[in-house]
Amino acid sequence: MKEIFDRIVPAPSLTEVTANRIRDAITTGDLPLGHKLSEQRLADMLGVSRSPVHDALAILQSEGLVNISPKRGSYVFTPDLKEVDNICEHRALLETGSVRRAIARNKDKLVAGLQSCVDEMEEALRVNSSTDYTRGDLRFHETIVRASCNRSIASAYKRTISPLIALRTHLFTIMNANIERSLDEHVELLDACKRGDADLAAALLEDHIGHLIEAYRQELSSQTGFEDAITASR
Amino acid sequence: MKEIFDRIVPAPSLTEVTANRIRDAITTGDLPLGHKLSEQRLADMLGVSRSPVHDALAILQSEGLVNISPKRGSYVFTPDLKEVDNICEHRALLETGSVRRAIARNKDKLVAGLQSCVDEMEEALRVNSSTDYTRGDLRFHETIVRASCNRSIASAYKRTISPLIALRTHLFTIMNANIERSLDEHVELLDACKRGDADLAAALLEDHIGHLIEAYRQELSSQTGFEDAITASR
Repeated sequence: MKEIFDRIVPAPSLTEVTANRIRDAITTGDLPLGHKLSEQRLADMLGVSRSPVHDALAILQSEGLVNISPKRGSYVFTPDLKEVDNICEHRALLETGSVRRAIARNKDKLVAGLQSCVDEMEEALRVNSSTDYTRGDLRFHETIVRASCNRSIASAYKRTISPLIALRTHLFTIMNANIERSLDEHVELLDACKRGDADLAAALLEDHIGHLIEAYRQELSSQTGFEDAITASR
Repeated sequence: MKEIFDRIVPAPSLTEVTANRIRDAITTGDLPLGHKLSEQRLADMLGVSRSPVHDALAILQSEGLVNISPKRGSYVFTPDLKEVDNICEHRALLETGSVRRAIARNKDKLVAGLQSCVDEMEEALRVNSSTDYTRGDLRFHETIVRASCNRSIASAYKRTISPLIALRTHLFTIMNANIERSLDEHVELLDACKRGDADLAAALLEDHIGHLIEAYRQELSSQTGFEDAITASR
């Protein structure tokens, strides 16, 4: 049968909406790293009962954004360098796997999507807006993963990278120090996708994410309070 | 400082224990595919209140094992061939990425672990126990992922493959028809790991998981009630 309808997407549940709002507050930095989270206070601020807040915190715990301790309460996560390394490596695996599949299955849509992200990032650099740059950058990587046409990979990716997005906001100097190199790397990656060179695209992505790991490592080690995490991870 | 203590692992929460019990019941087939799940009934059977059951079902929904519809209630998932394809592809990505890292970082432990699984599978074949064979097989693949030494990948893997384990139980004829070939493939893979040939190991894993996808496809299409899902995915 000809497809005359787009499928109706069910509305998200109250728990999902609550989780999305708290996740946004963590990734944008409104709720800082290590901040104590009171279920009652969050419920009051969001205008909901405690039950969806409770469920939302459990979801965010599974994403690594929230630590829940039965005795001490719930807190926004604090970065542990070993964990950040692991998440970056996991991210690289999902993105390199996705770019290979996207080039094989969906090249034109992939290239068009990445081009629009690069345009957004170039404009952001021109007007010196690191917020807009970050948005374009995140959209660039999401475009790669979505173009793999694999919902299972895409949903795991979304659950995996939230702590990296939050760290990026928190360690804001990373972006400003490396923004020119970052843009060059994205443009190179787009060119590899245009030429349909999946091996090169995957290798460039590995390098790009490797540079981010270095930046996190340097930035975390230069901040007070993270020495223990860094020592423990070596 | 010298490591004189193993870290104390906190006890799982009541919600986690509840989720584990319901997950086991689905993957072993005690709760069949498509079965309606009543929170109150599950709470009564498990001897807990409804709250941990409610939270556990939300966790199992995120793993694809349970479908929750606000209007109609909660059900054990029913297989959709497109979704099964996606999960198998995702699984292949995580396992091939893991085997490369495991060979590079952790080869001796990887080989010892895989050898003990192959021994278990050979013994199971000798005494004709498909349950024992399945246990060895699952442990073989978990060993690969754990030997990658990446907790983020390992926990995503665990969340990803539950529906495949449940399907394997449900479509029991898959195992019995292909058990000899399956054992050969595991032995070949172990040999590639022993030789430290990461490219070969990754290629063998891709083929092995590819054979499973074919088996699911054939088996699902031979069963009544799944025709719609199969037509929709083509």
